[in-house]
Amino acid sequence: MFPETGLGSLAVAPAATAVFTAVLTEGPLSRVSLARRLGLSSAAVTKAARPLIDTGYLHELAATERTGPGAGRPASPLAVRADREFFVGVKITADELIGVVCDLRAAVRATARRPLAAPDVEAVLTDLGQLVDGLLDGPGDYRVRTRRLGLAISGDVDRTTGLVRYSPFLQWRNVPLGQRVARITGLAATVENDVKALTAAEHWFGEGVGAESFALVTVGTGIGCGLVVHGRLVSGSHGVAGEIGHLAVDANGPSCHCGGRGCVEAIAGTQAIVRQARERTGRPELTIDAAVALARAGDEQVGAVFARAGNAIGSGIAAVANLVGPARIVVSGEGLAAYDLFEAHIRTGFERQAFGAAAQCPLSIRPLPFEEWARGAAAVSIQSLVVP
Amino acid sequence: MFPETGLGSLAVAPAATAVFTAVLTEGPLSRVSLARRLGLSSAAVTKAARPLIDTGYLHELAATERTGPGAGRPASPLAVRADREFFVGVKITADELIGVVCDLRAAVRATARRPLAAPDVEAVLTDLGQLVDGLLDGPGDYRVRTRRLGLAISGDVDRTTGLVRYSPFLQWRNVPLGQRVARITGLAATVENDVKALTAAEHWFGEGVGAESFALVTVGTGIGCGLVVHGRLVSGSHGVAGEIGHLAVDANGPSCHCGGRGCVEAIAGTQAIVRQARERTGRPELTIDAAVALARAGDEQVGAVFARAGNAIGSGIAAVANLVGPARIVVSGEGLAAYDLFEAHIRTGFERQAFGAAAQCPLSIRPLPFEEWARGAAAVSIQSLVVP
Repeated sequence: MFPETGLGSLAVAPAATAVFTAVLTEGPLSRVSLARRLGLSSAAVTKAARPLIDTGYLHELAATERTGPGAGRPASPLAVRADREFFVGVKITADELIGVVCDLRAAVRATARRPLAAPDVEAVLTDLGQLVDGLLDGPGDYRVRTRRLGLAISGDVDRTTGLVRYSPFLQWRNVPLGQRVARITGLAATVENDVKALTAAEHWFGEGVGAESFALVTVGTGIGCGLVVHGRLVSGSHGVAGEIGHLAVDANGPSCHCGGRGCVEAIAGTQAIVRQARERTGRPELTIDAAVALARAGDEQVGAVFARAGNAIGSGIAAVANLVGPARIVVSGEGLAAYDLFEAHIRTGFERQAFGAAAQCPLSIRPLPFEEWARGAAAVSIQSLVVP
Repeated sequence: MFPETGLGSLAVAPAATAVFTAVLTEGPLSRVSLARRLGLSSAAVTKAARPLIDTGYLHELAATERTGPGAGRPASPLAVRADREFFVGVKITADELIGVVCDLRAAVRATARRPLAAPDVEAVLTDLGQLVDGLLDGPGDYRVRTRRLGLAISGDVDRTTGLVRYSPFLQWRNVPLGQRVARITGLAATVENDVKALTAAEHWFGEGVGAESFALVTVGTGIGCGLVVHGRLVSGSHGVAGEIGHLAVDANGPSCHCGGRGCVEAIAGTQAIVRQARERTGRPELTIDAAVALARAGDEQVGAVFARAGNAIGSGIAAVANLVGPARIVVSGEGLAAYDLFEAHIRTGFERQAFGAAAQCPLSIRPLPFEEWARGAAAVSIQSLVVP
């Protein structure tokens, strides 16, 4: 059984959910400003906010703090009490668990990592229970104000039920991960695909705040994309969306494991880069770290591999901009540890293929610490508090 | 001045707009069924429908008509009176006007064509006025029940103001087309980009009805795409969306007029096909019609040009499916007059590149009579009646 979910009776009313979401993601906000942006009366805002204040989720800032230029009489903006509740986030990879404790504003308060003894479900659950205990019972004593946990995992996940339908790296099929983890930890668990979890974090607490549409592109072993359009995550009518890694950008390019040809991932995924670097140098033992080192040392052959990869990623990102037109695009992922080798080529590929005004779409290209994936998991857990 | 817009006082209430839209696009529907799908009480539906019935836009079907299997006592579904009002739609091309009169359900009642004497604004407006007069004063006597007109034109259009910012085929810049046409015809005018207008027609009156997401791809001189996601047309934060023609699908492909390389349009647009067919046959005078005839007669060189074009289009469509995951995709356009040469290759390219379950997305590939573009313009005009 899952423990009690949602804000409980606090946010059953749509107005309370709307007020809390707006203050959480875009606050502090005055009641007047909330009323305007939500299309509610000031009285309705006040009524919706009261139980949230009474239970300590919101508080009023001092009246001297103005909400913006041109404000009339001093307003008392509503703000979230970030330490009212804490959330655990865990990213599950094939060989390691990465965990964080976040506050209500998704700020990371504590982190922990744990290598996996084995990738089978029982072993992972044991390790996960110990990781979570360590986070909650360690310094900071987060246990008492933590009721929820989010899990991020690559693959096909049903967020509604917490079922992992298929995770290729772990070779899991139809694992009821949410239920299992809830039972072990005593926390309400939410499970989400890792790219979608990162997108949720950017949408509510990052560069996507307030954007009607935006995209997050992740570069690493896989190349993925989370898309927000009309303010909501795109999930795909047939369960597939954001598969930027499988756009064909080179009709004569290498075959891809998906059955396609010249896919972005078949040119720019970590394995594809290693394979091409080995071919070009004639060194079959080359690792990705060694390839990065060679390229940084000026090796032209290996440098060309990264250039081609960056160009392919840029073409794929341009495809997102040309088709959907996001307000902005964030490019990140562990592959961007080699950011210095990629960035210029990603931008070149993007600028060449972005059509007309689509080239105005700002690209934020930045490395992604692995803890960010775990923070994404925590963000999904925060969302489950607000919108059960 | 634009004449009076909207249903006037009839549909000022959001409930009336919702009821009318649902019956128009998905009707006939019983009040019970309307209440359920709109989240309204039966009383609210009845209240919203009354003025629409009083003014003749809706009527009740006989109570013996059941709404579906398992219905309890006989319901009296509400239906639209299709001939309550008529709408003119005009597609403006570089050398011709195509006009239609449609009823409220977007059924074509009359059609007319008129070659353009010259592509300059004044000449086009003169021809357009005569075309509209001919449609409204001819057989059917549509004049008395026609208040609105829609215009579809390729290029960058601001639907809100009726301004044509840029139309490359006509070489128009910043033409206040809506205002000018309203003055000449006495009809309330709505102007929309032609691909978006076609998408609107499919969304409200075609294969997109009831779909949360779908895509329309047009193949011809240009290759375009209209996208509906979360029930709304995607317009792009920077004014660009649906530019499937400028996705890069061949890193070593031909240069495109947009500055990119290997764009779908640079391989599969009509001009690109003619250019490649001329190169392959060594016949610099070849037209598109001659190329189609040669390919149909079994010429392998020209057949290969169509195969490559179809494959490129299929890759582009797979990109739409992989990124956005529409419920279905309609592929159409004047280029599909050569449908027999394209279809198999479009499907091959799509199936090769569609990722996993994205391949389940149904493709409807069908030719598009030019009158359909004009019907799209009329559909936009119908939308302006319902949602001013």
